[in-house]
Amino acid sequence: MSCSSDLAALLGSGAANASGAAGYICGQFESVSLQFTDAASAIDSTYLLFSAYLVFAMQLGFAMLCAGSVRAKNTMNIMLTNVLDAAAGALFYYLFGFALAFGGPSNGFIGRHFFGLKGVPEVGFDYPFFLYQWAFAIAAAGITSGSIAERTQFVAYLIYSAFLTGFVYPVVSHWFWSGDGWASASRTAGEALLFRSGVIDFAGSGVVHMVGGVAGLWAALIEGPRIGRFDHAGRSVALRGHSASLVVLGTFLLWFGWYGFNPGSFTTILKSYGPAGSINGQWSAVGRTAVTTTLAGSVAALTTLFGKRLQTGHWNVVDVCNGLLGGFAAITSGCSVVDPWAAVVCGFVSAWVLIGLNEAAARYKYDDPLEAAQLHGGCGAWGVIFTALFARERYVNEVYPGRPGRPYGLFMGGGGRLLAAHVVQILVIFGWVTCTMGPLFLLLHKLGLLRISAEDEMAGMDLTRHGGFAYVYHDEEHDPSKHEGGFMLRSAMARIEPNSTPSTTNQV
Amino acid sequence: MSCSSDLAALLGSGAANASGAAGYICGQFESVSLQFTDAASAIDSTYLLFSAYLVFAMQLGFAMLCAGSVRAKNTMNIMLTNVLDAAAGALFYYLFGFALAFGGPSNGFIGRHFFGLKGVPEVGFDYPFFLYQWAFAIAAAGITSGSIAERTQFVAYLIYSAFLTGFVYPVVSHWFWSGDGWASASRTAGEALLFRSGVIDFAGSGVVHMVGGVAGLWAALIEGPRIGRFDHAGRSVALRGHSASLVVLGTFLLWFGWYGFNPGSFTTILKSYGPAGSINGQWSAVGRTAVTTTLAGSVAALTTLFGKRLQTGHWNVVDVCNGLLGGFAAITSGCSVVDPWAAVVCGFVSAWVLIGLNEAAARYKYDDPLEAAQLHGGCGAWGVIFTALFARERYVNEVYPGRPGRPYGLFMGGGGRLLAAHVVQILVIFGWVTCTMGPLFLLLHKLGLLRISAEDEMAGMDLTRHGGFAYVYHDEEHDPSKHEGGFMLRSAMARIEPNSTPSTTNQV
Amino acid sequence: MSCSSDLAALLGSGAANASGAAGYICGQFESVSLQFTDAASAIDSTYLLFSAYLVFAMQLGFAMLCAGSVRAKNTMNIMLTNVLDAAAGALFYYLFGFALAFGGPSNGFIGRHFFGLKGVPEVGFDYPFFLYQWAFAIAAAGITSGSIAERTQFVAYLIYSAFLTGFVYPVVSHWFWSGDGWASASRTAGEALLFRSGVIDFAGSGVVHMVGGVAGLWAALIEGPRIGRFDHAGRSVALRGHSASLVVLGTFLLWFGWYGFNPGSFTTILKSYGPAGSINGQWSAVGRTAVTTTLAGSVAALTTLFGKRLQTGHWNVVDVCNGLLGGFAAITSGCSVVDPWAAVVCGFVSAWVLIGLNEAAARYKYDDPLEAAQLHGGCGAWGVIFTALFARERYVNEVYPGRPGRPYGLFMGGGGRLLAAHVVQILVIFGWVTCTMGPLFLLLHKLGLLRISAEDEMAGMDLTRHGGFAYVYHDEEHDPSKHEGGFMLRSAMARIEPNSTPSTTNQV
Repeated sequence: MSCSSDLAALLGSGAANASGAAGYICGQFESVSLQFTDAASAIDSTYLLFSAYLVFAMQLGFAMLCAGSVRAKNTMNIMLTNVLDAAAGALFYYLFGFALAFGGPSNGFIGRHFFGLKGVPEVGFDYPFFLYQWAFAIAAAGITSGSIAERTQFVAYLIYSAFLTGFVYPVVSHWFWSGDGWASASRTAGEALLFRSGVIDFAGSGVVHMVGGVAGLWAALIEGPRIGRFDHAGRSVALRGHSASLVVLGTFLLWFGWYGFNPGSFTTILKSYGPAGSINGQWSAVGRTAVTTTLAGSVAALTTLFGKRLQTGHWNVVDVCNGLLGGFAAITSGCSVVDPWAAVVCGFVSAWVLIGLNEAAARYKYDDPLEAAQLHGGCGAWGVIFTALFARERYVNEVYPGRPGRPYGLFMGGGGRLLAAHVVQILVIFGWVTCTMGPLFLLLHKLGLLRISAEDEMAGMDLTRHGGFAYVYHDEEHDPSKHEGGFMLRSAMARIEPNSTPSTTNQV
Repeated sequence: MSCSSDLAALLGSGAANASGAAGYICGQFESVSLQFTDAASAIDSTYLLFSAYLVFAMQLGFAMLCAGSVRAKNTMNIMLTNVLDAAAGALFYYLFGFALAFGGPSNGFIGRHFFGLKGVPEVGFDYPFFLYQWAFAIAAAGITSGSIAERTQFVAYLIYSAFLTGFVYPVVSHWFWSGDGWASASRTAGEALLFRSGVIDFAGSGVVHMVGGVAGLWAALIEGPRIGRFDHAGRSVALRGHSASLVVLGTFLLWFGWYGFNPGSFTTILKSYGPAGSINGQWSAVGRTAVTTTLAGSVAALTTLFGKRLQTGHWNVVDVCNGLLGGFAAITSGCSVVDPWAAVVCGFVSAWVLIGLNEAAARYKYDDPLEAAQLHGGCGAWGVIFTALFARERYVNEVYPGRPGRPYGLFMGGGGRLLAAHVVQILVIFGWVTCTMGPLFLLLHKLGLLRISAEDEMAGMDLTRHGGFAYVYHDEEHDPSKHEGGFMLRSAMARIEPNSTPSTTNQV
Repeated sequence: MSCSSDLAALLGSGAANASGAAGYICGQFESVSLQFTDAASAIDSTYLLFSAYLVFAMQLGFAMLCAGSVRAKNTMNIMLTNVLDAAAGALFYYLFGFALAFGGPSNGFIGRHFFGLKGVPEVGFDYPFFLYQWAFAIAAAGITSGSIAERTQFVAYLIYSAFLTGFVYPVVSHWFWSGDGWASASRTAGEALLFRSGVIDFAGSGVVHMVGGVAGLWAALIEGPRIGRFDHAGRSVALRGHSASLVVLGTFLLWFGWYGFNPGSFTTILKSYGPAGSINGQWSAVGRTAVTTTLAGSVAALTTLFGKRLQTGHWNVVDVCNGLLGGFAAITSGCSVVDPWAAVVCGFVSAWVLIGLNEAAARYKYDDPLEAAQLHGGCGAWGVIFTALFARERYVNEVYPGRPGRPYGLFMGGGGRLLAAHVVQILVIFGWVTCTMGPLFLLLHKLGLLRISAEDEMAGMDLTRHGGFAYVYHDEEHDPSKHEGGFMLRSAMARIEPNSTPSTTNQV
C-alpha cells in the first residue's frame, strides 16, 4: 500500500516504529474503506431490489389494463397470459434468458454464461440484478399479449411467449445493455463504440417497448382484426373494453411501476459525479429521471385529453390513459440524459404520434385491442429518436462516463452521430424481431394454431377454453325468476366440478 | 483544518515531517467524512424517492375510492379527474407550484425561485424532494374532487384543479413547511417563531387535508346536493356507490401510501438524535411515525365499526373504510411527535368527529359524495388540535431541533402556546381557502360553468360527456335476445368510432 | 482502547505526545465506526420498513383475492373481515401480541415484555421491527378468514380473529423466531438447540401459513360446507367466485407483497458474510431469497396450469393463481437457505400437494372457499419438510451463524436432525392450533354463534348484515322500465338512510 510507505516516511525515525505505526493507521483506513464497500453493496442492493419489485408491479398493471380493455368474455384468457408471462418468464429467464442477455464475455451478439444462474453472484451480477432484469423481460412479453388479445389460441401464446422471453428479447438486451454488446454505449473500455457513440437506450424504449410492440404488430397483422372490429362498410367500430375502472387501475399501477423501470435502470444509487461530498451524484440523477418520466407521461396525457376532445367531442379517460402510457414508453429511452423541459417536449410529441398511428391503424384496418404496437412500438421509436435529439452533454457524460468527447443530442449541439446510432437501433430491432417473431407467427398461422375459430371468438374464449366467465354478479340461486335478465349463462354459475364428472361437455 | 494542526503538535518534532504526517492522516479522515456525505445522500434519496412513490400510489387509491363511491354512470368522469390531478399537477407544480411553495428566500408568504426547476439541485432541494412534494400537491386536489363528484362540469374541474394545485396549496405549504414560512416550526435559525412555537403540522392534517376539505366544502355548498340525495320530505337518501370492492381497494391503497405520506415527511432517515452510535435516531422516529399512523387509523376503524353498528344495525365496510381514513387524516399532523398510546386517543376521537359531522351534514342537507369535507376537513382539523394537546417534549425537540425550551402538547405539560399557534393555523387555512377558492367557485357558478344540467345528471356524465359507460359486462352481440335485460345501453357497446363519423350525435 | 495503547507504543517517544497523538487518531477512528453504526441503522431500517409496507400490501391482496373468490352476495362481509384483520390486529398486537411473541427474556414458551410497546426502542427491537411483525400477524388471521367465508357470523369472526392475532399466533412465533424460543434455530448463544439444530422456518411456512391454515381447517370442518356446495348425489358443485379479475389482482398483490415477506425476514441487509469488502453478504442472500421465492411460485403455477389442463380440460386462471400461492407458501420456510434449482423442485411438488389435497377435500366433502387449509396448511407443511431436505450447508451457516457443525438438508448430506426438528414443528403447530382454536370454534358452535342461518346464507350476508350489496352497476332511477332485468334489488339502490328512519326494517 502506498499509504503505508508514504506515511512511514512522514513519521520518520522519530517514531519508535514508523512503518509499524503507518501500517497500523493505514490498515484502519483500509478497513474503513472495505466497510464502505459493504455499505454501498447494501444501499445499492436495497435500491435495486425495491426497484425490481416496482417493475414487477407493472405486470399487475398490464394484467389489469389488458383485462379492462377486452370484452368481459375474454377476461380470463388475457389475465392468464399475464400471469404466465411472469411465471413462465421466471423459469425461462432463469434457465436461458439471463445467460443470453448478460453472460459475457461474449462475441457481442449473444451471451453465454450464467445459465441456470451458475456463477452468480459475481461482481456486477448479483441476484438482485437478475431479478431486475427478469422483471424487464416479462414486460416485453406482456406488451405483445395486448396486440393479439381476444382471438389467439392459448397454445400459440405459450409458444411465442416462451420464444420471446427466452431468446428474442434477451439477445436484443445483450446488444444494447451488456458491456459486451456491439451497440452498447457503455462498452468495456477499449472496445469501439458504434459511431463512436453507441446507443443510449437507457431503460429500453427500443429494447423493451419496440421489441414487444413490433412482435405484436406482426402477430396482429397475421391474425387480422377481431370479428366486428370493422363493419361492412369498412368503418371502424369500437369494441369497447368491459371495464374502464380496470383500465385506470392498470394505468396507475404501470405509472407506479415505471418509477422502478426508469430511475431503477441506474441499478445503483451511491455514486458521486463530482468530488466526494458534493450534491452532484447518482442520487440526484435518479431523482431527475423520476421527474422527467413523470413530466413526459403527464404532458402526453394532457395533450391527448385536449387532442381527443377536439377530435371526438368527449373527455375520454381511456384515451388519456393510453396517451399517458405512450409518453412513458417514449421517455424511457432518454429519461436519464435529458432535462425536465425536454421531457415536456417528448410527451407532447408522443401524444400526437399515438393519435396519428391510431388514425392510421383505423384506416388500414389494423386491429390491436390494446394499441400495443402503436403505443409501445410507435411511441417507443419516437423516444429513441427523441433521445438522439435532446440528450444533454453533461448528463450523457455522467451516466455513461469514461468516454470524453462522446456525442450527445443533435439539438443540443452534440452532432448527428448519436442520431445515426439510434436510427440503426430502430432498424436493427425492427429487423431482428421481424425475422424471428414473424416466421414464428406465420408458421403457427399455417399450422392452424394461431387464431381461434369464429364460433369460439363469438362465444368468448373464457367460456370455451377457460372454464367459464370471469364474473358472476347475479346470484341466480337466490332469485331464479330473474335469470333471463342476468348477463351470465346459468351453466357458468354453479357447475358440477369436472373432476367429479369426467365426461364434461366443454372439455376442449 | 484543526485536525491537521492539532495532530502535528501531538506528533511533534520526532516525526520526520509532523505536519506532513498530520496532513496526510487528516486528509484521509476528511475523505472518509466526504464519503459519508455521499452515502448519506444515497440513503436519504432512496428513502425519500420510495416514500414519494408510495405517496403517488395514494392517487391510485383516491381514484379507486372515488370510483367505487359514485354511481356507475359517473365512474369515467371521476376517474378522469383523478388521473388529471396527477398529470396536470405535474405540469403546474413543475412550472409554478414548487417555486411558490419552497422557493426561498422569500417574504414568508410565497416563494419565488425554482420556477421550472431552475436552480435544482441545490442543498436540500434535489429532484427527489420535488417529486415528493408534487405527490403531496396532487393529493390535495384529489380530496376536493370527491366533494363535487357526480354533478360538476368537467371544465370547472379543470379550472379549480389547476388553481388549487398551482397556487392555493403551494402558498399554504410555504407558510407552514418552508424554512421561510411565517408560521413554520422549523424556521431558519434566528427568525422568530409564531408564539415562539410555530405550527407543528408534520405531514399536513392542515396543510393538505384541511385545504382539500375546505375547498370541497365550498364547492359542494355552492353546487348543492345531487338530485335525489334528499327526498321530498327532506330525508337523507343514500345514493350508494356502485362498487364496495373498489372502495376497499382504494382504502387499502391509501393506507399503503400513507406510509410514504407520514413517515416519509422526515425526508431523511440518516440522522442521529443522540451521540453517534446510539439507537436513538431518525430511523427510530420514522418507525414510530409509521406505528402511530397505523394505530390511529386502526382504532378509528374499530370505533366506527361499533359506533355505526349501534347507529344503523349494520356492520358496514364502507363506513369502516371512511372511519379509517379519518383516523389517518387526523394523525397526519402529529404523527412524528406523539406516543403510540396518544395515537389511539387520536383515532378514537376522530371516528366520533366523522360520525358527528356526517350527522350534521345530513341534517343540513349538505351532500358530499365522498364525505371529503367532513373527513379531510373535519378530522384534519381535529388532528391539528390533537397535536397541540399531545405532542411530547422529547419528540418535539428531536424532530424540530435547535430551539431549546419550545412549547409542546398542553396535556403533556407543554403549555398553551402550541395550541394557540394551531388554532391560528386552522383559522388561517380556513380563511385562505375560503377567500381564494370560494370566489372562484362562485364565479364559475354565476357563469353557468359549475354544475351540469339536470338531464345530464340523471343520464350520468359518462354517457353525455365521456363517450360511454365505464362497464360493459354483457356482451350483447353474442346474445342479442337478452339485451333488454342488460344494464348497459346497446349504443354504448359497439359504437362506430367518432373519427370515422364526424357527425357524431353525442358530441357536446 | 487497544487502538490507543498499541498506536502509542508504535509512535513511541519520538512523538511529542505519543499517547495524545494515538488517542486523537484512534478517537477519530472510533467516531467513524460510530457513524457506520448510524448509517447501518438507517440502511437496515429503510430496508425493514419498506419490507413491512410490502407485507402490509399482502393484506390488500388477501382482501381482493377473498372478495373475488366468494359470491357477490358475500363480498361486503369478507372484505370487512380483511380490513378488520389489519385494524384489530394493530390494536391487539400493540397491546399484547408483540409482547407475547418477542418480549424476552422468557421461559421459552411465551414472551412477557413490550406490552403496549413499553421499553421500545431497545437494541434489536425498534419500531420498524414491530411494524414488520404486526404485518405478519394479520396475515395469519387473513388466511383463516378464507376458510370460513360465506357462512360465518360476524361476531364469531371478531372473537376468533382477536384470539388468533393476540394470542395463538404470537406464542407460535415466540417458539420459532424469538431468541428465547425453545425451538428457534437462532437461540441465544449457549442455549441448547432442539436436536442440536432448531427449526429453520425462515419466513413462516409453519409459523404463519400452517397456523392460519390449521385454524381454518377446524373452523370449516365444524361449520360444514356451504349450502349447495355438494349436490344431493354428493357430487362437488363449484360455487364460483364472482370476479376472476379480483382474484388475479389479489394474487399479483400477494406476489408483490411476498417480496417483503420472504427477503424481508432477514430484517437487516447490511451484513457481510465474508471478509469486509467481499461480494458475499446479506445483500446477496436477500436477492437470492427473492429469486427462490419467484421460482417456486412460478414453477408451481406452471405445473398447476398443465396439471389442471389434463384434469379438467381448461386453462384456468383461478387454479393457476392458487397454485402460484401454494408455491409461495411452500418456499416461505426455506427461501433463504436453498438454491434456486431446489426452489424449482419445491414449487413443482407444491402444485401436486395442492391438487391432491383439493381432490381429497372434494371427496370428503370439506368446503374451504379459498382452499386456505389446503394451500396454506398443506403447502406450508410441505415447505417445512422441503427445507429439511434441501437446505444447503453454506447458506444455513451464513443465515444462522455462530453454531459450527449444525445440521442442514438431508438430501444435501446434512443428516436427519433438521428433519427431526421440522417434523416436531409440524406436529407442535398442528397440536397447538388444534388445542386452542378447536375448542373456541366448538364453543361458538354450541352457543349458536358460529354459523349464520340458512335463510341468511341463501340471501347473502351483505343484504342481511352489512347494509346491502357490494355492487350497484345498474342505475334504475334513470331507466326504471328495466329494473326487472337488473341484478340488484331496488331496495339496495337508493335507500333512506337508517339514521333518518330509526324504524329501519333491515336492522338486525
